[in-house]
Amino acid sequence: MFKLETSVKLHDTDAAGLLFFASQFLFAHDAYEAYLNSQGLGFAAVLRDGGYKLPIVRAEADYSKPLAVGDRLTVEMTAEKVSVHSFVLAYRLLAADGSEVGRVRTVHVCVDGVSGNKIALPPDLRAALQKIAV
Amino acid sequence: MFKLETSVKLHDTDAAGLLFFASQFLFAHDAYEAYLNSQGLGFAAVLRDGGYKLPIVRAEADYSKPLAVGDRLTVEMTAEKVSVHSFVLAYRLLAADGSEVGRVRTVHVCVDGVSGNKIALPPDLRAALQKIAV
Amino acid sequence: MFKLETSVKLHDTDAAGLLFFASQFLFAHDAYEAYLNSQGLGFAAVLRDGGYKLPIVRAEADYSKPLAVGDRLTVEMTAEKVSVHSFVLAYRLLAADGSEVGRVRTVHVCVDGVSGNKIALPPDLRAALQKIAV
Amino acid sequence: MFKLETSVKLHDTDAAGLLFFASQFLFAHDAYEAYLNSQGLGFAAVLRDGGYKLPIVRAEADYSKPLAVGDRLTVEMTAEKVSVHSFVLAYRLLAADGSEVGRVRTVHVCVDGVSGNKIALPPDLRAALQKIAV
Repeated sequence: MFKLETSVKLHDTDAAGLLFFASQFLFAHDAYEAYLNSQGLGFAAVLRDGGYKLPIVRAEADYSKPLAVGDRLTVEMTAEKVSVHSFVLAYRLLAADGSEVGRVRTVHVCVDGVSGNKIALPPDLRAALQKIAV
Repeated sequence: MFKLETSVKLHDTDAAGLLFFASQFLFAHDAYEAYLNSQGLGFAAVLRDGGYKLPIVRAEADYSKPLAVGDRLTVEMTAEKVSVHSFVLAYRLLAADGSEVGRVRTVHVCVDGVSGNKIALPPDLRAALQKIAV
Repeated sequence: MFKLETSVKLHDTDAAGLLFFASQFLFAHDAYEAYLNSQGLGFAAVLRDGGYKLPIVRAEADYSKPLAVGDRLTVEMTAEKVSVHSFVLAYRLLAADGSEVGRVRTVHVCVDGVSGNKIALPPDLRAALQKIAV
Repeated sequence: MFKLETSVKLHDTDAAGLLFFASQFLFAHDAYEAYLNSQGLGFAAVLRDGGYKLPIVRAEADYSKPLAVGDRLTVEMTAEKVSVHSFVLAYRLLAADGSEVGRVRTVHVCVDGVSGNKIALPPDLRAALQKIAV
């Protein structure tokens, strides 16, 4: 499991006074980026190399408790499934007291950076994902 | 069905060159807001009144084709389900050629603006949603 | 002068109940993108071509009246200055009653898409900017 | 001086491959929020209390070097001016090698939370700002 500590910023909220629902996806993606960086597989290198891309083909979120500006939270990320051409990441968002405030799931496919055709996950990415597989 | 015409702005994209996945939820929510406005039930009035809130408890999206900056799209919104205390909105995103580029679904509950307890949908909101029910 | 009609969406606001200050820059940039599109010089083509980029080197905004979710506004854009390698765009944001709610100014330079060195504005871009020069 | 360590996320970039200009304002505001939190004056408390608001009436940014996804940066924030009813914050953004990549300045006024009329800065806020005054 990979953990990211973060917090709700004013720009994550809306005039209804709480977290804007789409911001929860940003917290999840921030964790994903931080994990790739920690494995030497960050987007900077991937985009520079150009060999593959990892478009998201499905995203879903559940919201169980409201979050307000300044709230601290922990994102726990695991790889729910690692297939030949795709993988599924699952994220739990926990409040400071450890209670679950939401969940996110993202489904990624690996495509060739030029043709856009589905290709197998590069071995280093596969290995990195398997480290956090459940 | 309610339709919103929109387009992909530079701030909806990311360095991978295409639409950032979370931006698709903004297109959907923009359609939802535009429909409420068209029915005299916009968030400005709802937030001023304070009687109820409509938090999203689940959101999901599928992405079938990449979108690039400047691409025009149509969001088609319907009410998939209108229950006593909640409703489900479904959105199809269509490219300029009419092909589907993505789908979004959001599940909303109606809660008291003060206590946060679940309450029945106000009659005018229920009526507005039933106009676009499938 | 180029005009864009837009409105404040929930995701442009924050928990203080009004427009989040940085969102005003998005309205300005949306007008800039819409104008480039109207002139056949949209970012899609510019990025595909790769010959030049137009990074912003300075941005400033003044806020004279608060904006709330649902507020309609008009962005009026002019080219305040068109130089050899750079240009300055000025935007006024007007409420539905015609009163000014804010101003934005952005300074852009033209750089070679590969080397990043300053180059002269392409003639078609220069011509497009001069159409809205004050 | 207050320092915030942060990094460029994919959602801060755009299809031109680098930081989207408006995202630089978010880094600055994140530092401002983090400083207020560290002083027990975070927005959560301010919004709950409702006694005052701190709208931004002017914002400006300079961009001296491009930033890419994954780049680490430090935001250094100081209070450039602390007046009776207003204050000015200045931010320098530094790359990992210590070089300056940009600057931001925001001008804030203090208004009554109900009437919206200008009021004097609360003493605890004034004291907190004077700690980082230059």
